[in-house]
Amino acid sequence: MWWVGAGYKTRNVDPSALTPPSFLLLNSRPQLLLVISVTMAKDMTLLWASGSPPCWGVQIALEEKNLQGYNQKLLSVAKGEQKSKEVLEINPRGQFPAFKHKNTIVNESCAICFYLENQFKSQGTQLIPEGAAEVGLMYQLIFEAQPLAQKIGEVLYYNWKVPEGERHDSAVQRNKEALKEEMKIWEGHLQGCGDFLVGKSFSLADVIIFPVFAYFIRNGGSEERYPNVAAYYKKLRDRPSIKKTWPPTWIDGPGMGTLKDI
Amino acid sequence: MWWVGAGYKTRNVDPSALTPPSFLLLNSRPQLLLVISVTMAKDMTLLWASGSPPCWGVQIALEEKNLQGYNQKLLSVAKGEQKSKEVLEINPRGQFPAFKHKNTIVNESCAICFYLENQFKSQGTQLIPEGAAEVGLMYQLIFEAQPLAQKIGEVLYYNWKVPEGERHDSAVQRNKEALKEEMKIWEGHLQGCGDFLVGKSFSLADVIIFPVFAYFIRNGGSEERYPNVAAYYKKLRDRPSIKKTWPPTWIDGPGMGTLKDI
Repeated sequence: MWWVGAGYKTRNVDPSALTPPSFLLLNSRPQLLLVISVTMAKDMTLLWASGSPPCWGVQIALEEKNLQGYNQKLLSVAKGEQKSKEVLEINPRGQFPAFKHKNTIVNESCAICFYLENQFKSQGTQLIPEGAAEVGLMYQLIFEAQPLAQKIGEVLYYNWKVPEGERHDSAVQRNKEALKEEMKIWEGHLQGCGDFLVGKSFSLADVIIFPVFAYFIRNGGSEERYPNVAAYYKKLRDRPSIKKTWPPTWIDGPGMGTLKDI
Repeated sequence: MWWVGAGYKTRNVDPSALTPPSFLLLNSRPQLLLVISVTMAKDMTLLWASGSPPCWGVQIALEEKNLQGYNQKLLSVAKGEQKSKEVLEINPRGQFPAFKHKNTIVNESCAICFYLENQFKSQGTQLIPEGAAEVGLMYQLIFEAQPLAQKIGEVLYYNWKVPEGERHDSAVQRNKEALKEEMKIWEGHLQGCGDFLVGKSFSLADVIIFPVFAYFIRNGGSEERYPNVAAYYKKLRDRPSIKKTWPPTWIDGPGMGTLKDI
């Protein structure tokens, strides 16, 4: 272990983290040397799909933990590549993301994010806060995000999930109402919060939930009816880890607008 | 902080943990003194319902962390008490469990379990394992348990969730098939595992997932078709933390058998 730091909070740096390219940033005061630890994560593999919030969360976590140069492959849900041999070898459920670190396979997006924080605690952004209230809120929001994502999916993919002969307008309407109620709860969570979902620093809650809100807005979710969600989205969308991993299929233009009446 | 231990792994014990009743166990070799730290958790409140896996998980976690004497109130879903004022004051979603520690409210069962481990790391059972492979698997299984619980719910509560005019036998059948597929995946996870879901020690994966399997079996899930699940269930059901918190409404007799053809 090397302890590196001068004038900044010291960080516990694994020597293997200092393989090139590590960045030596010299600021305007030459005596102030900051070493940012960047790991060339050649022992990691991520199979992912563009525009999938669960994949995006993992990519953001990797950036925040300064894990660069991992093996990655962009695959296509439209082509059904989540059921391809290379995905199934890692994730028998045939879902994105599929992730491997050395010999350890971890599936489920949130699980991968927690794993990365656990394994690289002292590298990059600290993604689990310190205070009891912040810790409790972070965990709560992450587990509340599961029904949020589910409710968005039930509106967006109703026709895909439900066979034609079983579809009912009343069910569609009920799903929409459930999503509206859910979004109101999140408006409440975001009321008076600063730049982040929890306390004064970026945490796993942001890693996991920002992509869900971005997906909501991308698919037509109203910025007017959910101003706190919209403000949060705008504050974070230019964060380097988020901007760098912005879904490539989203860059060309807007989404479908399916959620416009939510 | 006091460091207590002789002949056993030492534990970092908070003095407040030694308020009575702390247990001083003297084994057959009098020089070997083991102090088990028990906190009288009078600053915690749990509102819960009997037979709810999310509530049960929290109760198991509290036992494993040696948190005793917390304020608790058994309420009734049948009476709609999840929407009562006292629940809504803690959990605006009107769901069990509702949990508070000092001034910190934490809702969502898994979030509460993680919070307890985070806040009482050095007390009671260590619920997050050490090794990378074990950590990754634990997180994966916990997040995979969300769709498992959801699929059980979709079979058990179809008539409650879906209005009469929207019900279809084909949907019921599809939900059953989805649960069967899910259970097969868990049979695979449990193939060749020892007493616990992850590695050689009890972890948050057991805290959270044992109650889900118990619920499956309680409601008629087949021990013959899912022998690994049944074996796991039998190995853990007499563990003190589990036995002590066994749902009181389950003691009088078997459940409904709704899952018997899964």
